[in-house]
Amino acid sequence: MVNRSELVPTAFKELPDITGIRIYTFETNTKYKKRDDLLVVVFDKGTIAAGVYTSSLCPSAPVEWCKESVNYNKIRGLVVNSGNANAFTGKRGVQTVNNMATGLAKNIGCNIEGIAVASTGVIGEFLNESMILDAIETIDLRMPTSSWVDAAKSIMTTDTFSKLAFKLCKIDNCEIIINGIAKGSGMIAPDMATMLSFIFTNANISHSLLQEILKETTNISFNAITVDGDTSTSDTFLAFSSNKAKHRLIEDINDPKICEFIKSFKEVAINLAKQIVKDGEGATKFVTIELEGAISNNSARIIAKSIANSPLFKTAIFGEDPNWGRIVMAIGKAGEPASRDKVKIWIGNNLVASDGVVVANYNEEVVADYMKNKNINIKINVGIGEGYDKIWTCDLSHQYITINADYRS
Amino acid sequence: MVNRSELVPTAFKELPDITGIRIYTFETNTKYKKRDDLLVVVFDKGTIAAGVYTSSLCPSAPVEWCKESVNYNKIRGLVVNSGNANAFTGKRGVQTVNNMATGLAKNIGCNIEGIAVASTGVIGEFLNESMILDAIETIDLRMPTSSWVDAAKSIMTTDTFSKLAFKLCKIDNCEIIINGIAKGSGMIAPDMATMLSFIFTNANISHSLLQEILKETTNISFNAITVDGDTSTSDTFLAFSSNKAKHRLIEDINDPKICEFIKSFKEVAINLAKQIVKDGEGATKFVTIELEGAISNNSARIIAKSIANSPLFKTAIFGEDPNWGRIVMAIGKAGEPASRDKVKIWIGNNLVASDGVVVANYNEEVVADYMKNKNINIKINVGIGEGYDKIWTCDLSHQYITINADYRS
Repeated sequence: MVNRSELVPTAFKELPDITGIRIYTFETNTKYKKRDDLLVVVFDKGTIAAGVYTSSLCPSAPVEWCKESVNYNKIRGLVVNSGNANAFTGKRGVQTVNNMATGLAKNIGCNIEGIAVASTGVIGEFLNESMILDAIETIDLRMPTSSWVDAAKSIMTTDTFSKLAFKLCKIDNCEIIINGIAKGSGMIAPDMATMLSFIFTNANISHSLLQEILKETTNISFNAITVDGDTSTSDTFLAFSSNKAKHRLIEDINDPKICEFIKSFKEVAINLAKQIVKDGEGATKFVTIELEGAISNNSARIIAKSIANSPLFKTAIFGEDPNWGRIVMAIGKAGEPASRDKVKIWIGNNLVASDGVVVANYNEEVVADYMKNKNINIKINVGIGEGYDKIWTCDLSHQYITINADYRS
Repeated sequence: MVNRSELVPTAFKELPDITGIRIYTFETNTKYKKRDDLLVVVFDKGTIAAGVYTSSLCPSAPVEWCKESVNYNKIRGLVVNSGNANAFTGKRGVQTVNNMATGLAKNIGCNIEGIAVASTGVIGEFLNESMILDAIETIDLRMPTSSWVDAAKSIMTTDTFSKLAFKLCKIDNCEIIINGIAKGSGMIAPDMATMLSFIFTNANISHSLLQEILKETTNISFNAITVDGDTSTSDTFLAFSSNKAKHRLIEDINDPKICEFIKSFKEVAINLAKQIVKDGEGATKFVTIELEGAISNNSARIIAKSIANSPLFKTAIFGEDPNWGRIVMAIGKAGEPASRDKVKIWIGNNLVASDGVVVANYNEEVVADYMKNKNINIKINVGIGEGYDKIWTCDLSHQYITINADYRS
């Protein structure tokens, strides 16, 4: 039994309704017992969507479906099941996705290209879709809907808490709602902990603008977190807009009227991304890494990730050991330009190393004391240029080994 | 207290002497107490050498010295200290290396460019070289030498056993000795577990041929192992030849007379590399990964390392869980060409997945039983081309976390 993460944030009680977006959750008993494990969202006509997916070259059948077949200009439904990823399941897996999309499309009366599908859970096992199809068949748009909290709970796998976030903002004086849910724990464990996130809004924007915003957002949110550096076959980040807000249609990312929306959208995604790190498998510390002085932002990202993914760095954080030597090691192995003799490292507000050596007045006691915090900030300047990046990660603890070594046995 | 690795191999009692190569070990109390922590090797005139170093862009002062200043055509000495890596120590670190080389050069009467230096241990702390210089001063070539076993022990840091290997072979009917020692545990922990290896022989070969052989060998030995994917600031692999064997000088790698020597040299290095994996921090399983069907050998290496370095794969091995889904995940995240629907995976002799799905007659019980072995063989065919690679790694256990989280505290 895995305990709730020590880093669980204060939970949202509920998110606001968005007209034209209906949530239904079901207990299908496909894998889990005594909990909802199927989420169906039905959208009014006029809804548009956008998607970003795993970079894995062995993606799951639902990811292939969403990438290749879904019509994001005419989206009508989303089906998400938890417990089985329908990945590495060959032609039978493709047929299963098709059956799930067909089931909902028939029920609500649309083309199957109007239905997005996402699945997470065990990979390499065939998904028995019969109970899922039965549940989809019972949907009647006049029946009571489920809540956003229900939705967030129904998509959980090894998550120890449900993940929700929202922001309100204005476009041209119209109230805009941005609701998000996510799941993931161990960013990207392929078994039961793949990252999924769905954001829902009512802004009146084009599909291609939403796609642009989604891409920008992914880079500074879900792509800026890492738990164990492993990449799942199923990672999926979708955004949907009912387009029901009364302002004029916005299509250009440089339109000043969309600026506040983009900022709020990013805040929701970053909030969800941080929650995933806080629920990282076995996490006891939440670590922010700021990397400056790199030759480019991309180079800063590579160095920051080299640090964040280093098992030695992560175990030192778990051990509350201000072992900045391991940061130097991880900078060195990143293979990116860095000036060893100009590197500066801060742990919290403490400058510990400067100009290629430990600072003269280094006080290990003070820094060791800082390491006892739940939130640890590390800043590094690699002394080359203006490239900057900020990412979030967690430590590597005994509990990570326990969860992942003992999971299937 | 860390216990001896469960995977410790049968130890060599001693290696044969090589005329013209004198070993001296000392207890300097620089970092460790009550054990030798300094190795000095003195070579007769005529000895040549070759070197391969860490790819880290933040290398230690001794690595910079060896790469930039040492004259491998006229090598006379090697100084290795354990407990302090003299890395990230700025100008003072450079001076320390210079002092160590000067000390031995003065004593034996040669240029300081004739002295190679290697240091491993804590990084970012200044190395107090005074006790080391005192020890070097006492060396008198008429005094009794230390043994190869002493040499291997004196360079250990977090190693739980000393690492030695040797082979005898012939060049043109002359008996050739190839002796090797190594240290490393957690391939590449920067604190106290950096990889060092030194091979010594009497073959009469040119510096540039030895360098070619060393490079080829590194690729299939020390570069084909991984414990935690972390790369140290200090990794160093040096080879020395007294050139005293009576056969004619060999300079060409295609000379048929050198063929058996190259094979034996590689065997010594592979033997040492495997010992390092077996002493991997917290290792309980020795894992061989064969990757075939890739687009190139280089691509096969990238995919094999993606699997070997995946924390999820490694924890599954520790948990004795035949979780081939994590192998698929690691193939997918490697970013190299692979045909998802043609991938084949063997665990031991058991084909578990084929043509993109689990095999029809998959028997988890049989495969789970195989996972209880100490030596685990995994073979993967990614269904694209003829590229092949073989690497070795170990599992990721609770003991790894304990060693690395609790080390400095």
